[in-house]
Amino acid sequence: MPLILFSAKSERWSIYESPLRAALQEVGLGDATLVTEAAPEDVDYIVYAPNSGLDDFTPYTRLKAVLNLWAGVEDVVGNETLTVPLARMVDAGLEEGMVEWVTGHVLRHHLGMDTHILGQDGIWRAEAPPLARDRAVTVLGMGELGASCAKALAALRFRVSGWSRSPKEVDGVTCHSGTEGLDAALSGAEIVVLLLPDTPATRNVMNARTLALPAKGAVIINPGRGPLIDDDALLAALDAGQIGHATLDVFRQEPLPPEHPFWAHPGVTVTPHIASETRPISASRVIAENIRRGEAGEPFLHLVDRKAGY
Amino acid sequence: MPLILFSAKSERWSIYESPLRAALQEVGLGDATLVTEAAPEDVDYIVYAPNSGLDDFTPYTRLKAVLNLWAGVEDVVGNETLTVPLARMVDAGLEEGMVEWVTGHVLRHHLGMDTHILGQDGIWRAEAPPLARDRAVTVLGMGELGASCAKALAALRFRVSGWSRSPKEVDGVTCHSGTEGLDAALSGAEIVVLLLPDTPATRNVMNARTLALPAKGAVIINPGRGPLIDDDALLAALDAGQIGHATLDVFRQEPLPPEHPFWAHPGVTVTPHIASETRPISASRVIAENIRRGEAGEPFLHLVDRKAGY
Repeated sequence: MPLILFSAKSERWSIYESPLRAALQEVGLGDATLVTEAAPEDVDYIVYAPNSGLDDFTPYTRLKAVLNLWAGVEDVVGNETLTVPLARMVDAGLEEGMVEWVTGHVLRHHLGMDTHILGQDGIWRAEAPPLARDRAVTVLGMGELGASCAKALAALRFRVSGWSRSPKEVDGVTCHSGTEGLDAALSGAEIVVLLLPDTPATRNVMNARTLALPAKGAVIINPGRGPLIDDDALLAALDAGQIGHATLDVFRQEPLPPEHPFWAHPGVTVTPHIASETRPISASRVIAENIRRGEAGEPFLHLVDRKAGY
Repeated sequence: MPLILFSAKSERWSIYESPLRAALQEVGLGDATLVTEAAPEDVDYIVYAPNSGLDDFTPYTRLKAVLNLWAGVEDVVGNETLTVPLARMVDAGLEEGMVEWVTGHVLRHHLGMDTHILGQDGIWRAEAPPLARDRAVTVLGMGELGASCAKALAALRFRVSGWSRSPKEVDGVTCHSGTEGLDAALSGAEIVVLLLPDTPATRNVMNARTLALPAKGAVIINPGRGPLIDDDALLAALDAGQIGHATLDVFRQEPLPPEHPFWAHPGVTVTPHIASETRPISASRVIAENIRRGEAGEPFLHLVDRKAGY
């Protein structure tokens, strides 16, 4: 039976121990050893949070795979001591939560809800928004999360465009790709959703030049990764009115420091990295299934493409 | 060629004249006479807003049908001088707008957005909501609008229950009906959406007794009709914490007077009857199609059941 090291902060262990043991039992690995400390040379699998403090995998000589607890792998993918397969978390709960958060905030901005939520002043402002079919929404990133969000928005009849590094086809979505496709995807967009991975190629994808492409007053929604946005360029575009609002869930530094200008800017809504949280029960099942596969000699699911960086 | 009387306030005429003429042209009735004043005995059809001032249909001796500009017919359905067919507005734009507003506000409450929209204070409150699959939403009213909203919510994986006077079947929705079914539909609901017509049987459907049935802290969303709610009972339930929030788009008196306690109550969001606005282009097509049918001897669409009151 394999030895599984859970390497994450202690508060994660208290959340994950019980669902992980249950999930291992479900796949016939109830006798596996699941611990938070072990001699490196005895460890078969590491369930891993990149902020756990473990960053030298060299002593883990019999390691078969590292199973990331989160979808984002940017803090581990470049680790040269990691030579065994690395799997991302692809959690149905995480994807569903993201679709709900993105759909909710797109509808919030589409409907102009804040006018009412913040303006309960007795004034009857009866202006109906256009229909979704007349609203242009662009999703940057057509991976699992981006494509699912784009499809949910298209089902609500939004006019959805998508962009990805390599060409993709998604039902109901006008798909662009490559460097030249980015400008086409952004031009005229009224709501832009960022769901790209954090790689050297995507850093500052929203910068002074690209922030000028959407329709005047457009909304930026970022549930992806903080470094996708050049923060200073965004603040300038907000102050100039080119961008009407930004709803941001991820930041270069988290928690976002209280003195950061995003908190005080009336055109910015900060949410505390809640767009998509891995849910312990479903995530534990994904990890247990990958360990079962490793033990059975079957291919791992959700492997990271180390060259692409995600 | 028929004579069509447009009977609504003058600001409506300025909005509707051009799309109505275009829609009549589209169905081959470009030569029809469309006017805002005519001798009653010459009128074939009335395009009608219940607040137009016309409330005696007796002199309209050759009238073939009354085509309501709005979905709500409560102010005309009991008019005993109206003996010809009465058609409601069933506008695709109206239905789409309603689905967007309902889906948006259900997601707003599901995600707890107001905490962030109203609380940009530098405090990182990282609490993720449950998934939609674990959120019980009940829609009262399974007519065109209610069923469309229920289906859109079910597509986002909410656990949706519906209630209607007579039994209905809607894909993905647990349907209840009849007097006894109402309590079952409301019991334990976390978000309740009111999309019933305004009839003697539905008035005050949300009262002190029924407001106690949903889960503690439940949200009431009313884009239907103002009289569906006993306002005093709702305020009491909000003050007691039994109802956590109410987002209300319709009221017994509109515009809602500035001194009404709903404006100032922190647990109430007032929106100015914008959940569903008839869009002139699509609504004009619905009216023109019904006139074409009347002229061709075909059955009218969207006829009101005068006994049921809608």
